[in-house]
Amino acid sequence: MEYQFSRRVLELKPSAIREIFKYAADPQVISLSAGNPAPEAFPVREIAEISAGILAQRPIDALQYGTTEGYTPLRGHLAAYLKETSGIGSDGDDLIITSGAQQIMDLFTKSVVDEEDTIVCEAPSFLGALNTYRSYRAKLRGVPMESDGISLEGLEQALKEEKRVKFIYTIPNFQNPTGATMSLAKRHGMYELAKKYGVMILEDNPYGDLRFQGEDLPAIKSFDTEGIVLYSGTFSKVVAPGIRVGYAVGPKPILQKMIVCKQGEDVHTNIWGQMLCDELMTKYDFGAHLARLREVYRKKSKVAVDAMNRWLLPKITYLPIEGGLFFWCTLPNGIDMLEFVKRAIDHKVCVVPGNAFLTDESKPCQSFRINYTTPTDENLVRGIQLLGEVASDMIP
Amino acid sequence: MEYQFSRRVLELKPSAIREIFKYAADPQVISLSAGNPAPEAFPVREIAEISAGILAQRPIDALQYGTTEGYTPLRGHLAAYLKETSGIGSDGDDLIITSGAQQIMDLFTKSVVDEEDTIVCEAPSFLGALNTYRSYRAKLRGVPMESDGISLEGLEQALKEEKRVKFIYTIPNFQNPTGATMSLAKRHGMYELAKKYGVMILEDNPYGDLRFQGEDLPAIKSFDTEGIVLYSGTFSKVVAPGIRVGYAVGPKPILQKMIVCKQGEDVHTNIWGQMLCDELMTKYDFGAHLARLREVYRKKSKVAVDAMNRWLLPKITYLPIEGGLFFWCTLPNGIDMLEFVKRAIDHKVCVVPGNAFLTDESKPCQSFRINYTTPTDENLVRGIQLLGEVASDMIP
Repeated sequence: MEYQFSRRVLELKPSAIREIFKYAADPQVISLSAGNPAPEAFPVREIAEISAGILAQRPIDALQYGTTEGYTPLRGHLAAYLKETSGIGSDGDDLIITSGAQQIMDLFTKSVVDEEDTIVCEAPSFLGALNTYRSYRAKLRGVPMESDGISLEGLEQALKEEKRVKFIYTIPNFQNPTGATMSLAKRHGMYELAKKYGVMILEDNPYGDLRFQGEDLPAIKSFDTEGIVLYSGTFSKVVAPGIRVGYAVGPKPILQKMIVCKQGEDVHTNIWGQMLCDELMTKYDFGAHLARLREVYRKKSKVAVDAMNRWLLPKITYLPIEGGLFFWCTLPNGIDMLEFVKRAIDHKVCVVPGNAFLTDESKPCQSFRINYTTPTDENLVRGIQLLGEVASDMIP
Repeated sequence: MEYQFSRRVLELKPSAIREIFKYAADPQVISLSAGNPAPEAFPVREIAEISAGILAQRPIDALQYGTTEGYTPLRGHLAAYLKETSGIGSDGDDLIITSGAQQIMDLFTKSVVDEEDTIVCEAPSFLGALNTYRSYRAKLRGVPMESDGISLEGLEQALKEEKRVKFIYTIPNFQNPTGATMSLAKRHGMYELAKKYGVMILEDNPYGDLRFQGEDLPAIKSFDTEGIVLYSGTFSKVVAPGIRVGYAVGPKPILQKMIVCKQGEDVHTNIWGQMLCDELMTKYDFGAHLARLREVYRKKSKVAVDAMNRWLLPKITYLPIEGGLFFWCTLPNGIDMLEFVKRAIDHKVCVVPGNAFLTDESKPCQSFRINYTTPTDENLVRGIQLLGEVASDMIP
């Protein structure tokens, strides 16, 4: 049979990262290409304790169908926690649980974006989100990133020029892939521009709790008095990604449509994972867990920085980070970045070519992304050393 | 802010079942409206044992990111099991894991259906699937159900008349909501018609293992030599729905597109649930578990049948079933079914009005659906007795 596919999937290309993951699966290759949290940061003992308690005392609650909106105690505890710690959420807002934060990108797009509507994104940005937007045939407009976040001039220009912009997609803290954090002034600036042009903001904050240096900045959602920000959070980086538990805080009318869409997608998020997160937040010292996590990342990022200073500088530069999972490294002009990444794979180390994160992959890009959290310290140093060897070969 | 929604969600109505669930949440109301498996059928002890073992021995495997296609051991074991027990799967096929079977409806539709394409459905059919199809703005064409499955004449007429039919959606075993099982002749007939008209079949089989009477019939997928059938299975009814683990067997090119879509929806299915199912199938006597399950349903369905014979017949008739979760009850002509369901709620018993399962909800319908598996035996009998009281009031 000759299969007929929908227009939306015919236009989707396999992700460049997924292609590269094929090499990363080779046990001989050191992968600096993943986005995995450090396994040593998982609260394994606590999860085993909680899980045993749930399955002994409330097994049917964990195993029967649940509500699409999410496990009620977790929704309540999370909403109170976000309000108290970050000023997130107002009377017009609600909170729903999703199957990872990826599902928030999907449900929001499905609820508000028609084909050919525009989504304004940071360029570069999180590939997984861009691909979700593409799957709804949205038009993507990229706005250049600077070291303190998106260019506000570029953003206003995009909002002026593009017709039918539905929302701005931003990762304000330790952005994927650049690691950059948006300044407070730019957070206010983005909010004002969204208000002025009548578009929403999708504020994606997977890494905010992974700050190991500097001071926390307020979420854009915390100054949302108009109901224009949808805030996306997740337990993937602070508990574990395999449990697939994310959460969205946003205006009730938006969340109501997202729930109808979620009903048709997966009915509800697995309940065991939701109960785990609820008990971790309420019966354990969640603040102490986060502090321990930040210590893990502080140490591990130092290992990466020391190795990059030794093996990459000055031929390859990198942006300093204050948290998150990624370093954004840049080759000198005139050096072919894709050729560099290919040669790195020949040298048994794998990184992600920067153009994979652009709204238009065919545009030139001199950068690549390093993840420092997944490999062992030993492999991390060895991998960076191998990148240095490729640089020595290619860069005069 | 005035929110602007996509056309696809503007057209979606809240599900009639969800509206009725609001009444069902009243603890005073006996709910015969759910689709939940019987909690006493969950293998709670085995799940607790397996979970403890996983979290003690392989916690990182369960907690780290996994592959979108699913947990590799489970994919292999399931594919072998389905081939051996049911002849499902050929060289051109593959198997992927999904977040419940609902996600199969979603990913398949997203992969093959453009707006205004047609999906041919049994009428009545599973509301959750119909709503997923509607969310992609597919045109739904209903074909009447008979006691031995879909009308083949009606099916051929639909395939002749409708332009751009992408697939036929069928639940051959203990159909939701009618409980009807498609005869072997009709299974072959549907396959031949699909071949003749060049359309695919989505064969949804959530209840097939819950047969407590009669002989198993082969899956349509088992005679698929042309690669036109996508088979949908789930652990929701035979292990537990709260874990959200389903699986699809189908042609590789179709599954490849579905995987790209799943990547953008939820990255992968929670891994703990996948590991549970894998160990239940391989380290325990899964056949004995299924036999025990069927015994639970045999007994419970007998309780329902005895009560219906006593309290509903002859004013309200029902279709006999050989498995599954539902009875389809029909009121005499001239009795207002929606009024009956409303009066039943006043009498503190809740069932689902049959028109909720039609491709066009506004069409007349004399039937309603009873679920016998969720309530206790006592509430099941009491609920049916209450329906009998309403019938006495309304039916001369």
